[in-house]
Amino acid sequence: MSSTYGENIKISIFGQSHSDAIGVTISGLPAGITIDTEELGAFLERRAPGRNEWSTARKEADVPEFVSGLNGNTTCGFPVTAVIRNRDTRSGDYEQFRNVPRPGHADYTAFCRYGDAHDIAGGGHFSGRLTAPLCIAGGIVLQILRSEGIEVISRIASIADIEDAGALDSSTAQKEFPTVDDARGLLMRERIMEAKAAGDSVGGVVECAVLGLPAGIGDPMFGGMENRIASAVFGIPAVKGIEFGAGFGVSRLRGSENNDPFRVSEGRVVTETNNCGGILGGITTGMPLTFRAAFKPTPSIALPQRSVDIKEMRDTVLEIKGRHDPCVVPRAVPCVEAAAAIAVYDAILELKKDMRN
Amino acid sequence: MSSTYGENIKISIFGQSHSDAIGVTISGLPAGITIDTEELGAFLERRAPGRNEWSTARKEADVPEFVSGLNGNTTCGFPVTAVIRNRDTRSGDYEQFRNVPRPGHADYTAFCRYGDAHDIAGGGHFSGRLTAPLCIAGGIVLQILRSEGIEVISRIASIADIEDAGALDSSTAQKEFPTVDDARGLLMRERIMEAKAAGDSVGGVVECAVLGLPAGIGDPMFGGMENRIASAVFGIPAVKGIEFGAGFGVSRLRGSENNDPFRVSEGRVVTETNNCGGILGGITTGMPLTFRAAFKPTPSIALPQRSVDIKEMRDTVLEIKGRHDPCVVPRAVPCVEAAAAIAVYDAILELKKDMRN
Amino acid sequence: MSSTYGENIKISIFGQSHSDAIGVTISGLPAGITIDTEELGAFLERRAPGRNEWSTARKEADVPEFVSGLNGNTTCGFPVTAVIRNRDTRSGDYEQFRNVPRPGHADYTAFCRYGDAHDIAGGGHFSGRLTAPLCIAGGIVLQILRSEGIEVISRIASIADIEDAGALDSSTAQKEFPTVDDARGLLMRERIMEAKAAGDSVGGVVECAVLGLPAGIGDPMFGGMENRIASAVFGIPAVKGIEFGAGFGVSRLRGSENNDPFRVSEGRVVTETNNCGGILGGITTGMPLTFRAAFKPTPSIALPQRSVDIKEMRDTVLEIKGRHDPCVVPRAVPCVEAAAAIAVYDAILELKKDMRN
Amino acid sequence: MSSTYGENIKISIFGQSHSDAIGVTISGLPAGITIDTEELGAFLERRAPGRNEWSTARKEADVPEFVSGLNGNTTCGFPVTAVIRNRDTRSGDYEQFRNVPRPGHADYTAFCRYGDAHDIAGGGHFSGRLTAPLCIAGGIVLQILRSEGIEVISRIASIADIEDAGALDSSTAQKEFPTVDDARGLLMRERIMEAKAAGDSVGGVVECAVLGLPAGIGDPMFGGMENRIASAVFGIPAVKGIEFGAGFGVSRLRGSENNDPFRVSEGRVVTETNNCGGILGGITTGMPLTFRAAFKPTPSIALPQRSVDIKEMRDTVLEIKGRHDPCVVPRAVPCVEAAAAIAVYDAILELKKDMRN
Repeated sequence: MSSTYGENIKISIFGQSHSDAIGVTISGLPAGITIDTEELGAFLERRAPGRNEWSTARKEADVPEFVSGLNGNTTCGFPVTAVIRNRDTRSGDYEQFRNVPRPGHADYTAFCRYGDAHDIAGGGHFSGRLTAPLCIAGGIVLQILRSEGIEVISRIASIADIEDAGALDSSTAQKEFPTVDDARGLLMRERIMEAKAAGDSVGGVVECAVLGLPAGIGDPMFGGMENRIASAVFGIPAVKGIEFGAGFGVSRLRGSENNDPFRVSEGRVVTETNNCGGILGGITTGMPLTFRAAFKPTPSIALPQRSVDIKEMRDTVLEIKGRHDPCVVPRAVPCVEAAAAIAVYDAILELKKDMRN
Repeated sequence: MSSTYGENIKISIFGQSHSDAIGVTISGLPAGITIDTEELGAFLERRAPGRNEWSTARKEADVPEFVSGLNGNTTCGFPVTAVIRNRDTRSGDYEQFRNVPRPGHADYTAFCRYGDAHDIAGGGHFSGRLTAPLCIAGGIVLQILRSEGIEVISRIASIADIEDAGALDSSTAQKEFPTVDDARGLLMRERIMEAKAAGDSVGGVVECAVLGLPAGIGDPMFGGMENRIASAVFGIPAVKGIEFGAGFGVSRLRGSENNDPFRVSEGRVVTETNNCGGILGGITTGMPLTFRAAFKPTPSIALPQRSVDIKEMRDTVLEIKGRHDPCVVPRAVPCVEAAAAIAVYDAILELKKDMRN
Repeated sequence: MSSTYGENIKISIFGQSHSDAIGVTISGLPAGITIDTEELGAFLERRAPGRNEWSTARKEADVPEFVSGLNGNTTCGFPVTAVIRNRDTRSGDYEQFRNVPRPGHADYTAFCRYGDAHDIAGGGHFSGRLTAPLCIAGGIVLQILRSEGIEVISRIASIADIEDAGALDSSTAQKEFPTVDDARGLLMRERIMEAKAAGDSVGGVVECAVLGLPAGIGDPMFGGMENRIASAVFGIPAVKGIEFGAGFGVSRLRGSENNDPFRVSEGRVVTETNNCGGILGGITTGMPLTFRAAFKPTPSIALPQRSVDIKEMRDTVLEIKGRHDPCVVPRAVPCVEAAAAIAVYDAILELKKDMRN
Repeated sequence: MSSTYGENIKISIFGQSHSDAIGVTISGLPAGITIDTEELGAFLERRAPGRNEWSTARKEADVPEFVSGLNGNTTCGFPVTAVIRNRDTRSGDYEQFRNVPRPGHADYTAFCRYGDAHDIAGGGHFSGRLTAPLCIAGGIVLQILRSEGIEVISRIASIADIEDAGALDSSTAQKEFPTVDDARGLLMRERIMEAKAAGDSVGGVVECAVLGLPAGIGDPMFGGMENRIASAVFGIPAVKGIEFGAGFGVSRLRGSENNDPFRVSEGRVVTETNNCGGILGGITTGMPLTFRAAFKPTPSIALPQRSVDIKEMRDTVLEIKGRHDPCVVPRAVPCVEAAAAIAVYDAILELKKDMRN
């Protein structure tokens, strides 16, 4: 099912950008988990729009309302459903895109898929806004993982042609603009503002790491950690590529360079390098699980673009008005963490089934 | 479930490298599909080992035996199960890897996951050999797709530092060493043989395109074509990255460069460029669906490697004997096609459910 | 997943009796279906409490609020989520049952399953109130089925020792107290009121038929119509048995009596009898699909009952106060129809996947 | 998927009565389980035909061949696939039923579902023979359950009008004709032989109990033990009804009679009666889980029957030759145990996911 993720924990996302509400149902959380709502709020704040110059001006009072599954803030074992009401919507802006689809958007493909019934306002179910419920689910799962010693961190690895320098660590993820090298971060923000000034947008790459995972999580073939994480991360709009460890770089290496040698360190098995991104045969090695996701530039730009009128079947030129992020990458960072957390937790639950009493 | 793929068509793969047999059960094929077994055999031959200098010398008489689901060669609506008997196995070679895991292989992680019960011989269920049943299923699905005007083609985009030139087309996929530019192909083969001579191995990239797909296939969020295909392709051992269309390259583009302008051509809507890889919002645009998968170099190499003895918890050096491909990429090409075909067909079946009578 | 039903259409129910809201997410509805909300309201009214002397006095303003998935009243292809706010709840009544579980209820088993985190108020997720979201989903599906010429009807087949007479038809299902023989219906109501007066409760049987189904719907083995329907109907609290066609009666027949002879009638194949309940090999015959579900008497009764104090591990006597239906059967009738409709529709969607373009 | 059962353990059955082989893939078995093949053989022997006067004369050398998933007899964590070769098949007998379907069989409905591609020989995938792979999977799961102190027992509760007397216990299940009261068993066998002599057949009821289950297994709504077990048991051909505990009888009881009073016994909570069949709210109470399944008489009988010629669309009379059980109930007993075991184990695995480390 398209809007549902997971086998052991099930994340089911609903809502359109301009429907009454968006939300998520999380099935498979054990009873007795107390959610730190303040921490969850802080996590959601990281993807919230309207906070700074590089994100859309749309205001969202995105406080999730938990309508079921909790006793106070504690899970009771039943499906947890949270909703966020949609406010500050201007649906009228969007009707034109039914006839003249925006390049780079789902307008045309959704028309082909759903016909005129497609709810195009605000991008419907394809809107980046639907990452808010993903972050609610992910934010809760992150708290569970943390209680088991597992941390998910990430950074902006690049924006346009500017790449971050240095190695990702936990402190980076907490920054408002999460780069290791703040000077590079400043350059990235310049690129964003340059694009904005030009009525244009830029893309980038998010790097993510899951720390503290024991070795032995994951399953072979389609249940591998790569499959699980890719399957979740591509659920974030604008992602066009994902790579684990040294990623596409491995295609240029020899085996003797790429193979991560094992060695014993402080009584446990580690690898000297981590080209495999902490995953061998789909299963965690106990080293950091690392991956990078490529985001395309925001398709909504102010510059005029060539499109078609699909009712009259003729070429035309489209100008998009409205409020749009010149770059989705900064707000996408917590979404990537959320997706990774859910995928990892699902694999951990899979393993629990194998444990003897 | 780790070894099962699909929601509408279900591909369930079983077997270990050295078990009595490997095989696949395919559920969800409609009744009345006649399989061209000769064509299927030719497809399987493309991944078979022992055919040339760049693949392992292990001989496999990999003719699938269909034990159920067919009447003659025609599907009857019930699960289709095909098995391939394992022969020419030398299990004794592998027991040493229980204690001293091979770098880059699943030996260590499988031990962490399954304990001593893991069937390590030949790599067990993690073996590249398990792509044979994937290709059986994919080969059948490819025939169904072709009957609906959909073709899946692919090529070797790079081996080590050598990149193919020119644009992928249908004729390329039929070559023994499928590159557009044969001179580049020759260089690639040189790289492979150089690595082999050095007791080493090389990686590469496979590019794949699905042609003839109508617009409107796929679903939003986790049901997008990227998710579906990634989820299948990462089921092939050694894949560490996947990117769609311009892939990681989009992260460096501006929206005005990356957005594919729509235009009307011969009465249908097309895009002038195809940076999106034929997918917007997870749904096909009607342009070729394109993606690239990065393969790591074969982890089994003849050179001595640093590893650990996990019983004695001490560092050691490992030398691997035996027969191994110096590069898995050439044989992986049909596997990528198989995975893509299955993912695409699953999405097509999803769409069929929405059709009015 | 426990609160989710279906493979092709997915019904995901959330909420507890006394949480902020209960609701349902329906995935897999095609785009472009216009919901007749008045008709849906009338359907929901049939299970609503507080309408008459044989149902609980709890008032529920059970108007579903559709927060996503619709454009106006028309589906747009994305998950449809409807919520009903919980009002008129008196949670204080229930805390005592944590220590002293009610016989016949899930209090004790939920404690064993979820521990103290269980949300016991109003029965939590086990409450009969959770059939309201089932009926929202079922009510929508019933409208789709009706547009395809398929009707789901039902009646009260028995209450306590009183059995209805005559054959079920469409007009029966519309009655406030749906029995074919109104005199028997009157007797049934007497049994209910007698039980109520005695501080007790009674059970009964609901008979259901799906009319207008073409032959060929359903799948073998675990995908048979019996499996699909049973799996949905046992989701209604208080159901303890289900039988199809002649049901348990077939166990006493000879093959020559039980086999339904085929014959040609008005150009189509029919069976002379329908002992098989319109299902052979799990697949519909084209005759009415018929089944009966047995409901236990409401476990909440006013009479003192023997129970245990599970904290002090000693026997005790429990008296339950509060508002309870002396018989759930009348209100369960539309729930059975809803469950049957969803199961049937899921099988129809399965078949659509096999259809050639 | 129709031939697949389970969420945590997946049982995937393949094969037709007269295909090369039938078999099963079991995914989700933990690594390190050693299968007692002798015990498994003895279990399979209980459903094997040709052993006595009341079963078909078809000989099946039904020794499962495990082609994958085992190291010796020990699971290695990967999918376990077992196949049984089909021998002693006489396909020619069946072609006539394409045009003239057998009453009570799936011939007609399979034609409507699959068209002429249906593999009708021996009943295809609808054959009772497909319960052999079910019993392979169930037999393995029964061994796992037994190692956890859980036992599944059953008996023939009735054949035609003869009902067994006394209470089911473990010793009964071991008898060749498993009734508590051997005199009643003798009468049942007389009924079978009378039917056989008359060219007819009889039905019956199987009663099953799962002993040793802790309280707290199962999930609410569609994940209840009733749903899970019903969903598996209706996968056995010829089952037309299922009831739990007092079953349909509860519909005639008052709440004060039906509610099972709790009491403390030897330091644990028990119920004085077990009308609920050990299940409240879908979750086990810790008392025996009990249910009964109704089997129809074998549809294949020697007596002439009225049918239709579906090509010529005219009424006709059919005489069935060949070897058929006059009553499937005795051989169905282990099948019911197998289905129950798999359903119970799947619920146990679900619970494991909730356990804290």
